[in-house]
Amino acid sequence: MRLTAIAGGTGAAKLLRGLVAVRPRHELTVIGNTGDDAEIWGLHVSPDLDTVTYALAGRLDAGRGWGLAGETFRCLEAMGDLGAETWFNLGDRDLATHLYRTRALREGVPLSAVTAELCRRLSVGARILPMSDAPVRTRVRTPDGWLSFQEYFVREKAQVQVLDVEYAGAAAASPAPGVLESIREAELVVVCPSNPVTSVGPVLALPGIADALAATRGRVAAVSPIVGGAAVSGPAGELMRARGLPVSAVGVAAAYAPWLRTLVIDRRDAALVPELAHLGVRAVLADIVMTDPERESALARVVLDLQPSLE
Amino acid sequence: MRLTAIAGGTGAAKLLRGLVAVRPRHELTVIGNTGDDAEIWGLHVSPDLDTVTYALAGRLDAGRGWGLAGETFRCLEAMGDLGAETWFNLGDRDLATHLYRTRALREGVPLSAVTAELCRRLSVGARILPMSDAPVRTRVRTPDGWLSFQEYFVREKAQVQVLDVEYAGAAAASPAPGVLESIREAELVVVCPSNPVTSVGPVLALPGIADALAATRGRVAAVSPIVGGAAVSGPAGELMRARGLPVSAVGVAAAYAPWLRTLVIDRRDAALVPELAHLGVRAVLADIVMTDPERESALARVVLDLQPSLE
Repeated sequence: MRLTAIAGGTGAAKLLRGLVAVRPRHELTVIGNTGDDAEIWGLHVSPDLDTVTYALAGRLDAGRGWGLAGETFRCLEAMGDLGAETWFNLGDRDLATHLYRTRALREGVPLSAVTAELCRRLSVGARILPMSDAPVRTRVRTPDGWLSFQEYFVREKAQVQVLDVEYAGAAAASPAPGVLESIREAELVVVCPSNPVTSVGPVLALPGIADALAATRGRVAAVSPIVGGAAVSGPAGELMRARGLPVSAVGVAAAYAPWLRTLVIDRRDAALVPELAHLGVRAVLADIVMTDPERESALARVVLDLQPSLE
Repeated sequence: MRLTAIAGGTGAAKLLRGLVAVRPRHELTVIGNTGDDAEIWGLHVSPDLDTVTYALAGRLDAGRGWGLAGETFRCLEAMGDLGAETWFNLGDRDLATHLYRTRALREGVPLSAVTAELCRRLSVGARILPMSDAPVRTRVRTPDGWLSFQEYFVREKAQVQVLDVEYAGAAAASPAPGVLESIREAELVVVCPSNPVTSVGPVLALPGIADALAATRGRVAAVSPIVGGAAVSGPAGELMRARGLPVSAVGVAAAYAPWLRTLVIDRRDAALVPELAHLGVRAVLADIVMTDPERESALARVVLDLQPSLE
């Protein structure tokens, strides 16, 4: 089956690992968020693409949910000795990815081609597409002014008030080659349990994505990143509030309502089913907190087995 | 006393360590070769500047003679996994230096200012000046064509025939701020025991350097990097041959004859004293092979104690 996933970072990585555990890897195309890409020490860092790449390569650090397993941070320590900023944790092996990517981008290679080559080198098996080859940058407005997403999320540890979110450059950016086709031609499009504002939001802000989601003949399902009134991980709650969305599966459904048909929500949120139905979104109840590989595969099966006849 | 040293890499590092062991660091200005600078993985690497910087910071790996003590090479391994070239050994902590330098250069900071900041951050104490802020690149012509110095020295392990050597960009490059003054105003200028062709040669190829050496009122002394008929380390012999110089202290004296007054040579080369005198260079005999810190300091004392009355 042709399977396309729209993915952010940590939460997406878990569901994607589940999907390739139960389906052949070559069936999967991942559209990765690049709105949180950043320049760190002069290097182009693509945190969400890398999290997904490392996860599918079996190299993601399971405890942290980002970076490589068994990583060391010698260069980071030495950068600290030199007085450079060290709030963004670049590991020694991870640095190779950023050095490789940065050099290729400077030579004019598009991000999509660099990403494909990294996937090939790391034996990912699945296809990972950056959402766009053009720079789109998620920025967060705080009482002290605009921050890049990584400044907000990593440097400030998401502990500042969010007044607004924007996706700078999105309106003028084209989806990367293959992105729209992979949505239109998929038998199933899965929106991973990622932050709807800063992980999936930048993808949706690109011209043509929402239309492709609305027009695809395949099934379109999302997994909620919210259980009860809080995000499974990360700052999705604060960011949803800033965008005027309820911090619940209802807010997720509202963000995706124009094109979403099915939202997989946690069993504990069964009471929200009527509200979702009111938004035109069918709710499917499941155990959506993926705390081990078995739960990742189990949730992947739930998503894959959604009955199209019910949509 | 005002002390200026013209320095290459490994051999220079030893004598410089000796000099700061017996004189206050602030007296020392080092003019460092940048002819072997290279772009590796998109990073600006200055091998000779770094060897000297690390040596004076007490951080040089004593066994290798380059790089940092206690270094790891995780990023290098990961670059190999990505199919990148790995013939140039960049360590994880060393990478911080190159990342720091590369970002600053891209932002328009001159190499001399970056080098000064690295010295400050690493508590070098002495002043290290790159020979020029402009790019000068030593290239080596082999039967298969021109190679950069690092391609010749590291990638090919100096195992290819050398037909010619050039210093691309030297004629148009100005010495970095302070370089000519530090030669003119020094009480003693020391040419370190470095390769006369590819370590000292690029410095001498810059406009004004040879004139400043000839005109300085300070003493000018060099330490031979050659003992008997071979270099103490590195490919100086092959490179001197390619430039038509005898591979001996006589060849060193011939290369420096226009401005050199005193050459410190190994006691085993006493027979060469008349030949050096014939070139107008006074020979001083000493133990010039620095195999431990005591010998570094002892040779530094020999250089510092040279009698100006004899010049």
